[in-house]
Amino acid sequence: MDMRPIGVFDSGLGGLTAVRALRQILPEEQLIYFGDTARVPYGGRSRETILKYARQDVRFLRSFDLKAILIACGTVTTTSLETLQAENPLPIVGVVEPTCRRALLVTKNKKVGIIATLASIRSGAYEAVLRRLDPSVEVLGKPCPLFVPLVENGRFRPGDVVIETVAREYLEPLKAAGIDTLILGCTHYPLLTEIIRDVMGPEVTLVSAGEESAFELKRLLKAGGLRAEEGAHCGGADFYVSDQPEDFERIASVFLQENIRYAARRIDIDQY
Amino acid sequence: MDMRPIGVFDSGLGGLTAVRALRQILPEEQLIYFGDTARVPYGGRSRETILKYARQDVRFLRSFDLKAILIACGTVTTTSLETLQAENPLPIVGVVEPTCRRALLVTKNKKVGIIATLASIRSGAYEAVLRRLDPSVEVLGKPCPLFVPLVENGRFRPGDVVIETVAREYLEPLKAAGIDTLILGCTHYPLLTEIIRDVMGPEVTLVSAGEESAFELKRLLKAGGLRAEEGAHCGGADFYVSDQPEDFERIASVFLQENIRYAARRIDIDQY
Repeated sequence: MDMRPIGVFDSGLGGLTAVRALRQILPEEQLIYFGDTARVPYGGRSRETILKYARQDVRFLRSFDLKAILIACGTVTTTSLETLQAENPLPIVGVVEPTCRRALLVTKNKKVGIIATLASIRSGAYEAVLRRLDPSVEVLGKPCPLFVPLVENGRFRPGDVVIETVAREYLEPLKAAGIDTLILGCTHYPLLTEIIRDVMGPEVTLVSAGEESAFELKRLLKAGGLRAEEGAHCGGADFYVSDQPEDFERIASVFLQENIRYAARRIDIDQY
Repeated sequence: MDMRPIGVFDSGLGGLTAVRALRQILPEEQLIYFGDTARVPYGGRSRETILKYARQDVRFLRSFDLKAILIACGTVTTTSLETLQAENPLPIVGVVEPTCRRALLVTKNKKVGIIATLASIRSGAYEAVLRRLDPSVEVLGKPCPLFVPLVENGRFRPGDVVIETVAREYLEPLKAAGIDTLILGCTHYPLLTEIIRDVMGPEVTLVSAGEESAFELKRLLKAGGLRAEEGAHCGGADFYVSDQPEDFERIASVFLQENIRYAARRIDIDQY
């Protein structure tokens, strides 16, 4: 039994969807979330810059005595996961491999789609892992660069012509190509589940990156004897950001899908 | 006559719309553009940080022998213009005051609207300058947070239901409030001129920040005998960035509204 907290970080607040999944899957665990809101988004930056930022994020989180870290950021996972794992003596889980394993488990026709930010799709990281795990899989990647700003501006609800138009443009080519499994490869996308399901239809299974990472982390903690006492109490969560978003409570409530009334604490990430 | 180049900088690539305006208004001048793409956006950062970044941007540009600098960034102008002017012995022009003077010149009913990013509207900078220049003016500010990502994703053309829906939502309250002048207070917005005009109607005059700064710079150069030889040749432009964006050519071509085929050179801004 290990009551130390789990660290979770992302380039911004989107990673809070992973916090939501962790709370459902590991309700007893204490969580410490860091969102690098001063430097969001990471996606367009160079590999060196992303690694530099990711190292600072991990150094900040490790200023607490943690038992594990979940990287809720696809960009950091695809560029820096192995380096961070080599440099830090605690379990670190990314978002890519658990998600790919799940997608390969559920696909029947071996045609898997992946939607993510432009940087993630260009990195080819999901595709590389899918092919390593199963060389016979056919992968169709599609960047959806407007999904993040639309979600952050509250446009994720069915009936909104803006999100529905953009979603149809992005997703119809994937549907036409006959995929039976679609990876939601960005922290923001779980909020678009209903919109995406409306376009893709019931025959396509959606696999959400944050949720699969939370299951992977649960397996790792169990295997290492690192779980908190189960059923004993409900673990809380502390939120840190590198720049105070004016409406943290509103945005955080959207991603966590519950009303939160506490503010995030601001830290100076340049000092880490 | 002075053939030295003019420096232009912005937190990112949006300032290229000011380069476009300079090329039309001062076609003989040689331009050197710096976009701080590694640290974009500046808007959410503290005043000290913005001043520190702006000083580095100016130091880099002044590693060339310049005759003047245009700050294409609203955030830098509103936080750091006077300090930079005091510290550097060459003309430096910002985007706010020339734009406000123009808006006050064209308004008849003294109701001026201003659209910009959330950070700019919250800073109240345009509003403060407008009121200083004319205490009787009524100012209506409206943040348009989705305009930048929509423009960067190529959705700025009439007939696109996405940009048209978003533009109507943002702009109709300003129209209903009876403004007769609208300041486009963000470097990206000149690309939306046609969309914005369609919503606001012909009775509302649009004032574009980058364009007014270019006119102000022209006046300053003329007054100081600093113009290049007129009509002699066409001045070129060199582009520098602090982090290589994956598709600089595509994005730069959008902002400059011409196809460019040369890459930007990357520099390490931390060394300045």
